[in-house]
Amino acid sequence: MENHFADRLITAIKTKQTPLVVGLDPRWERLPSSLTGKIDPADFKTKAMAYQRFCCDIIDAVVGIVPAVKPQAAFFEHLGPGGMTALANVVEHAHKNGLIVIMDAKRGDIGSTAEAYASAFLGVKPASVWGCDSLTINPYLGDDSLQPFVTQCRATGAGIFVLVKTSNPGSQTLQELSTDSNKPIYQHVAEMVQQLTAEDLGEFGYGSIGAVVGATYPQQLSELRSLMPNSIFLVPGLGAQGGTAADVAGGFDDQGLGAVINSSRAIIFAYQREEYEAVDDWQTAVEYATRDTVEQLATHTSAGKLRG
Amino acid sequence: MENHFADRLITAIKTKQTPLVVGLDPRWERLPSSLTGKIDPADFKTKAMAYQRFCCDIIDAVVGIVPAVKPQAAFFEHLGPGGMTALANVVEHAHKNGLIVIMDAKRGDIGSTAEAYASAFLGVKPASVWGCDSLTINPYLGDDSLQPFVTQCRATGAGIFVLVKTSNPGSQTLQELSTDSNKPIYQHVAEMVQQLTAEDLGEFGYGSIGAVVGATYPQQLSELRSLMPNSIFLVPGLGAQGGTAADVAGGFDDQGLGAVINSSRAIIFAYQREEYEAVDDWQTAVEYATRDTVEQLATHTSAGKLRG
Repeated sequence: MENHFADRLITAIKTKQTPLVVGLDPRWERLPSSLTGKIDPADFKTKAMAYQRFCCDIIDAVVGIVPAVKPQAAFFEHLGPGGMTALANVVEHAHKNGLIVIMDAKRGDIGSTAEAYASAFLGVKPASVWGCDSLTINPYLGDDSLQPFVTQCRATGAGIFVLVKTSNPGSQTLQELSTDSNKPIYQHVAEMVQQLTAEDLGEFGYGSIGAVVGATYPQQLSELRSLMPNSIFLVPGLGAQGGTAADVAGGFDDQGLGAVINSSRAIIFAYQREEYEAVDDWQTAVEYATRDTVEQLATHTSAGKLRG
Repeated sequence: MENHFADRLITAIKTKQTPLVVGLDPRWERLPSSLTGKIDPADFKTKAMAYQRFCCDIIDAVVGIVPAVKPQAAFFEHLGPGGMTALANVVEHAHKNGLIVIMDAKRGDIGSTAEAYASAFLGVKPASVWGCDSLTINPYLGDDSLQPFVTQCRATGAGIFVLVKTSNPGSQTLQELSTDSNKPIYQHVAEMVQQLTAEDLGEFGYGSIGAVVGATYPQQLSELRSLMPNSIFLVPGLGAQGGTAADVAGGFDDQGLGAVINSSRAIIFAYQREEYEAVDDWQTAVEYATRDTVEQLATHTSAGKLRG
């Protein structure tokens, strides 16, 4: 692993000429029947192997197109310890194929517990057992809960994405509460993130402490782009959650950098979408949906400039 | 599983006559050498088996004394998939011994991802693969992110503990920000929790949606007790984090109910504490430290009334 997550991620984005990230969210009831056919739904271990196969096949379909994948830990934990074995194997398969892995686990804790999460997930195997390039982090516990993750990032060349403004409607109930300094909570988190990331900028002007900012609030994306000029945004909510390519435009700087855009269900379950029903097999549908999303991002955002 | 988490937990507290919960936080460098002796520190699978043995031995030492244990997921995740297998086995061992399991994993996500976490962790095996009685939850994503967990609690008789005010100094940076309604953020979360828990009260007047409130802020414990009269508090921070039995007094109602008090390091690594150095073996030190903490809680809080 090179020494700076933001540099590695941006280099990969420039190489692939797209900021699209494919989210790996396996859900049993939506897997192609070719993978689930004869498996007993109560047999969690075998189901986990199907998840692994599904995700590895997706990786094979998109490896030439995107810079990174984002496994969603919840769906693997949903299958118990066997699911976690599958998750580890998926991470390994992504790395073997040169993809950056953003683990979406939204961890957060304090002191030595946060250290345990940080050293577990971030870094290089075998020192880090999961060996991910990056991890999503929940900031509710406060600034000292972020520090162990930041320290681990510095030590290993990994990165984190701190939840700032999420894509769900209920994100308003806490994140948008206005404080007596007349700023919503998420702006306070944004300031924390900007301060942490500015301490260690890479060659492209971005640090390794990124921010999760939902695609479903386009106005806030632009506003937060100004507040966190040195943070890479991880933008969920494109596709199934309702965000469009145009909605995420505000997340980018004028060179098409500064954001990675995640799409999960709209890509990985593309075989179930009307526009891809004529496609022969589910993996090809994944590939087509990925290419189509890349095009939409290139057309509607400054990410088009990555094509030079 | 009976039908109401709060009732099950309070019944167990009354039976054991103490609200003490033992936290299972295995850390490699602090495990008794009898368990770690010849294990290669790079051999994560074998280390995980030592964690399992350590935690199961602790359970055996405290099963007659406390109503519940609280495994900290981070330390098991730290050992990768093998750690998760150990965690599953520890949960099973606790259940076989009739203990309530509060999984401290601080999960939180939105929509179907939150549903995946909820159905993974909460409920009864095999429908829930982890089969825990309760789970800690991070509220930053907002009210709709709590709902899938609440729904799962209602359906399965499980419970959650929502982070309201944590025990770390940095909890001030976000949780204590004052909003324009002149209330700190944690009070907004407290109101959310109170509303959710009041919807389904058990026979003792408590609901199954609890709150994490740190022992290190005694004044806030009393204040939050008033704000959330129907929520059971999970109070971390006793012992190694500096909270004393007197500090947690405000968490209880006048019958000694309404709170469970967690102690992890001070109990499970008691064999390394000066006051227990004369004790023959580490498991007996765990037992003594547990009994001593039970006594302190009985002396300095209304939990003494549980003895009738």
